[in-house]
Amino acid sequence: MTAEAALTQDAAPAESSRCDWPAITAELLSRLRRESTRVHAITNAAAQVLTANLILAAGGTPSLTIAPEEITAFASRADALLVNLGTLDGDRRAAIPWGIAAAKAQGKPWVLDPVFVDASPPRLELARLCLAGTPCVLRCNRAEFAALAGEAAAHDSLSRYAAALGCTVALTGPTDWVADGERFVAIENGHPLMARVTAMGCAATALIAAFAALERDGFVAAASALLAVGVAAEVAAEAAAGPGSFAPAFLDALHGLDAAALRARARIA
Amino acid sequence: MTAEAALTQDAAPAESSRCDWPAITAELLSRLRRESTRVHAITNAAAQVLTANLILAAGGTPSLTIAPEEITAFASRADALLVNLGTLDGDRRAAIPWGIAAAKAQGKPWVLDPVFVDASPPRLELARLCLAGTPCVLRCNRAEFAALAGEAAAHDSLSRYAAALGCTVALTGPTDWVADGERFVAIENGHPLMARVTAMGCAATALIAAFAALERDGFVAAASALLAVGVAAEVAAEAAAGPGSFAPAFLDALHGLDAAALRARARIA
Amino acid sequence: MTAEAALTQDAAPAESSRCDWPAITAELLSRLRRESTRVHAITNAAAQVLTANLILAAGGTPSLTIAPEEITAFASRADALLVNLGTLDGDRRAAIPWGIAAAKAQGKPWVLDPVFVDASPPRLELARLCLAGTPCVLRCNRAEFAALAGEAAAHDSLSRYAAALGCTVALTGPTDWVADGERFVAIENGHPLMARVTAMGCAATALIAAFAALERDGFVAAASALLAVGVAAEVAAEAAAGPGSFAPAFLDALHGLDAAALRARARIA
Repeated sequence: MTAEAALTQDAAPAESSRCDWPAITAELLSRLRRESTRVHAITNAAAQVLTANLILAAGGTPSLTIAPEEITAFASRADALLVNLGTLDGDRRAAIPWGIAAAKAQGKPWVLDPVFVDASPPRLELARLCLAGTPCVLRCNRAEFAALAGEAAAHDSLSRYAAALGCTVALTGPTDWVADGERFVAIENGHPLMARVTAMGCAATALIAAFAALERDGFVAAASALLAVGVAAEVAAEAAAGPGSFAPAFLDALHGLDAAALRARARIA
Repeated sequence: MTAEAALTQDAAPAESSRCDWPAITAELLSRLRRESTRVHAITNAAAQVLTANLILAAGGTPSLTIAPEEITAFASRADALLVNLGTLDGDRRAAIPWGIAAAKAQGKPWVLDPVFVDASPPRLELARLCLAGTPCVLRCNRAEFAALAGEAAAHDSLSRYAAALGCTVALTGPTDWVADGERFVAIENGHPLMARVTAMGCAATALIAAFAALERDGFVAAASALLAVGVAAEVAAEAAAGPGSFAPAFLDALHGLDAAALRARARIA
Repeated sequence: MTAEAALTQDAAPAESSRCDWPAITAELLSRLRRESTRVHAITNAAAQVLTANLILAAGGTPSLTIAPEEITAFASRADALLVNLGTLDGDRRAAIPWGIAAAKAQGKPWVLDPVFVDASPPRLELARLCLAGTPCVLRCNRAEFAALAGEAAAHDSLSRYAAALGCTVALTGPTDWVADGERFVAIENGHPLMARVTAMGCAATALIAAFAALERDGFVAAASALLAVGVAAEVAAEAAAGPGSFAPAFLDALHGLDAAALRARARIA
């Protein structure tokens, strides 16, 4: 079953929770491995290696340059763009608008990760400028959501903010929520060790970007990617002795993730 | 027993070696995990990921930004600041004085790691400027000490230099030495594989900063952090097949480190 | 047997395939461990940690600074220099010519890794400027070779381009080829998981630089280093459950690599 077919079975937005998410996710992973989807990530210094390794483990092809004079070439040849605000040096500040412009000019999806906008006014301002370029998906945590949306994260505030932005908003935490103004889904998968490895959330967002290149419905791309990450984390945690061994085990689990594991473990509704 | 109680039992500076270091260290680790102590690290490019992962594995909350326009916000919200001179690009050069100023203005401890000052005159000069801001702890190796202090590292030169600076000096190597001008302690724990993983020393210094946020006596913070790191390294080495598997095993060991392991393995006097 | 002796046994360039490559490689690894050869790497942000850890695992001593005002000091004290074009920020652009000049002034070998020159015109231009400084070895993949040489990679085009440059060219892929215009060797060792770990090729090139410091014949240095990396990858793959566990297993394998494993597994001719 293709992702499209799985969706067609259950097309009513309000009933998205009845989608066959394990099948959709397995299909997107298969396509990612088959097509070696290219993701260009303008991401923070601490996330670059894990982000690239997550994309590689999932089957895609990452690139990472942040040089302003090169970003147009790299963003144009990629199938999707990730913009993460975790490091705001001069190069990244200059590269981000050119990267977004190149993705939009090519009709490629782009995903925004507004890291730590709650901690720094210049980031909040830049995140708002980026949002004016309407990403396919905005991925944030509760503190970042509150800083951006001006209210605490809840089912209705998430849906309202997604509708206002005109994009999908994915809120990650012990439970992940994904909303696009009409549809809403909650993903219970994941493991506390994810929060003990730096840049896990940043790297997971790269999978959203990869899936968005294959499935232009950002809601489906985001929910599927977060399901894949959550299930891989659960598989990894069973093999890990702590956060150090969890990180490589997570990449192994994502690399080997299949429909059977997704079906057995998915807790999404 | 709290760290304070353990210290009170044995308050005479000259007798620091009779402190119950395993109990003090276990208590600091417990508090770090309970309080999710925030450490902001201005550190070198090769150390950022391991530093963040070490702080996370130990139970704290890291942040890493180096952008000059953001450093005041990040350093002010952190409980301690680490300044590592391993990468001296324009952003870090500009951010370091603002970070130190923010920490001092808030009464937060900061720790200096003058990486490779023996190899580069501009670093030596910058390290001296930083030292004028009196860190809580200076952590260095033998070559860096010699470049800074102008004499070879020895018990008496270390104590003399610490007294001159008015701070704790921690000298790491096969044996770690910690001195503050009055007290002196040597830590025999550790493992040669530590020297085969890049940035282990840099990352370990972040634990000194985390402990300094909880225990304002820099001598106690430094000795306890180096003991924790040394014992975790020994636990990890037993599970490792080489430097590659040692690094994740070290994070696992630090994550699970408890009073029993510290008591069984500590070689500190 | 020393590397020199092994070579002398079989000095005719055209018969390089009859060199005792396992013995030469084992001897270079022994010398690297004994002499703690210093390699300075101006390399991309995603490769810095793995590059340093690979050099450390192999027995050498890495340094990584990219600050223009420090590069002369660091490149001058190193035994070899690696220049990788994967991140082209202002600091690296400014540092690269000074680094190359310092290496050449000291008579130290330097190695070029023109990452992604096929994707970005400014990189291609910079790579050509660097090549005018005649590296000891140029290491690239097929797409990068085609962009630089203006023709597809093949035995004869590789030899022709190496002759034109006056240096050794190492082309890595499922099979690695090394040519210097007269000699040619193919290395069949390696494992597909290498392509699922970011910066493996970049890090491997650092071992070429390390070996070039010990063995000034760039052809021998490159072929030996790629053989060591390929054999270590095969050893690692047997212990790995995926790309996550492969990376630390690779460092472990390189750390423990010996003549027996090289002799048992080498497929080089």
